Amino acid sequence: MGKVYLVGAGPGDPELLTLKAMRLLKTADVVIYDRLCNPLFLHLTKRTAKLIYCGKKPYHHAMKQEKINEALVEYGKSEGEIVRLKGGDPSIFGRVREEIDCLERAKLPYEIVPGITAASGAAAYAGVTLTDRESSSHVTLSTAHRKGDHGESEQMAGFTKHGTACFYMGMENLPFIKKKLLEQAVTLDLPVAIISWGSYGRQKKIVGTLSSIEQLVEQADLVNPALIIAGDVVSRAPAESWFEKLPLFGKKILYITEKPFSFEKMVEFTSRGADIWFQEVGPNRDKRFDALTKKFLKENDFTDFYFENEGSEALFKTKC
Amino acid sequence: MGKVYLVGAGPGDPELLTLKAMRLLKTADVVIYDRLCNPLFLHLTKRTAKLIYCGKKPYHHAMKQEKINEALVEYGKSEGEIVRLKGGDPSIFGRVREEIDCLERAKLPYEIVPGITAASGAAAYAGVTLTDRESSSHVTLSTAHRKGDHGESEQMAGFTKHGTACFYMGMENLPFIKKKLLEQAVTLDLPVAIISWGSYGRQKKIVGTLSSIEQLVEQADLVNPALIIAGDVVSRAPAESWFEKLPLFGKKILYITEKPFSFEKMVEFTSRGADIWFQEVGPNRDKRFDALTKKFLKENDFTDFYFENEGSEALFKTKC
Repeated sequence: MGKVYLVGAGPGDPELLTLKAMRLLKTADVVIYDRLCNPLFLHLTKRTAKLIYCGKKPYHHAMKQEKINEALVEYGKSEGEIVRLKGGDPSIFGRVREEIDCLERAKLPYEIVPGITAASGAAAYAGVTLTDRESSSHVTLSTAHRKGDHGESEQMAGFTKHGTACFYMGMENLPFIKKKLLEQAVTLDLPVAIISWGSYGRQKKIVGTLSSIEQLVEQADLVNPALIIAGDVVSRAPAESWFEKLPLFGKKILYITEKPFSFEKMVEFTSRGADIWFQEVGPNRDKRFDALTKKFLKENDFTDFYFENEGSEALFKTKC
Repeated sequence: MGKVYLVGAGPGDPELLTLKAMRLLKTADVVIYDRLCNPLFLHLTKRTAKLIYCGKKPYHHAMKQEKINEALVEYGKSEGEIVRLKGGDPSIFGRVREEIDCLERAKLPYEIVPGITAASGAAAYAGVTLTDRESSSHVTLSTAHRKGDHGESEQMAGFTKHGTACFYMGMENLPFIKKKLLEQAVTLDLPVAIISWGSYGRQKKIVGTLSSIEQLVEQADLVNPALIIAGDVVSRAPAESWFEKLPLFGKKILYITEKPFSFEKMVEFTSRGADIWFQEVGPNRDKRFDALTKKFLKENDFTDFYFENEGSEALFKTKC
């Protein structure tokens, strides 16, 4: 019988992974990973580990939750160590309760490994503190999607009164959030920030008010994953945060190498603010990443290429 | 000029440290640390690093916040790399805004390194998920102390309605929290858990309702640091969580060694649920930890002793 680890991968900066998550990734036999984990973490796994993508987009699931639950039980019964890698923190909008329920019914042992949740990562990297002794004594993390009988009109009351509200994955629900907040004695000058790809080198943020934010979103080239932060603390965010001031911030670097992935090499770039993708080339490359890299290259433009040596440049140019 | 890193140390389990926090601790020239960080992290620093305690107890500060701010600026101006190590996440009740303000006024460069906040760690290790598609679509992290003109009566409205409320360091404010929740259409059968020393091997939890929790606290031997979780998700917590079921859970181990601290050795114990303290002995020990160890040994009982070899046993017995 195996053991299943429900692991938070944090918001994106590779160094915001916990030591525990790294240890488990290195020893895992199977990794079932989400769309919102930084896929570079998969390079930490051993070459024999099976990597299974169960990425979810809203309304567009690669694997339905029921299938994921089944897979966890299936692999948990047969294999050694299963890591279910989730973006952020599994206990916060990670649907971990449903996965736990299945594992408990199947009497499979499991552990939960917390990760840094998106609000914490995006806020810190955008220069927002979620609480503040002067203006915010609580922070509410909320979904922006809310359907059904959850008493919508009451739920947001009090979130932003002497507090901070963070809405996850809420870009297309901005009008709804605005409407709900305004129903509750919130004024149009409430400061609001939207941070997309928080803690990645491709991070973008816009800062405005409840009144201006929709227009600002239209003007800016913002995409999901994005986090909305509403509350007085936002007004203290500097135009450029410490992260946005780092020397390589905004650079998208493709690192091409014949050698195995090196976490330390990656950090040399990300700790200076860069966004990076690692591409192994040559016949000895870890072929598990071919499809992932192909997809990534299709979806992303790069500002810089970094070839580890002439050999890797030649191999990259022959598309090997 | 130096650089100041405002670093979250996470809730306590050493493996919940982030990779970034570990890297910075290893290279820091000065570490200014809080009472609520796991002090074993200090063993990661280089031997020449200066370690400064600024522990705060409520109403009993070793260093007042103003002094801490001054120290950050002082060291930031003169030394290389300053780590300000805080328990949990600096952006959530970490008073990081005040420290940032000082650093900005002094034009000192800084970075913020998020950590896993207490609510996330304690909940996961106690078997509570903070959100749940069925019953909780938001989670509010709040201080339990609230004084002044913050509109007390309104602040908690909506926290527990289809949501989860986490109160930090709130043990002695339990009557106040109960009163405020009851003023706001919350019923006495609201599930409530209190978790002290969450994610440490000495973790304790009690689970009850708003009606029973005060009596349960009186019966149990619970101490701060403690986190209060209120909401329907608590009713799903098992009597014994995955963490509380680990083979060494509840064991307090004193590890005595002549060799330098080994993170991996520590994890051999903590990953199986133990609480551990490392004591280096012998003339080559890192003497920076003598006072810390003395204090820790005074305040704690151990269930087990682990001597790395006969030499360390002999040295321990001669109190060297």
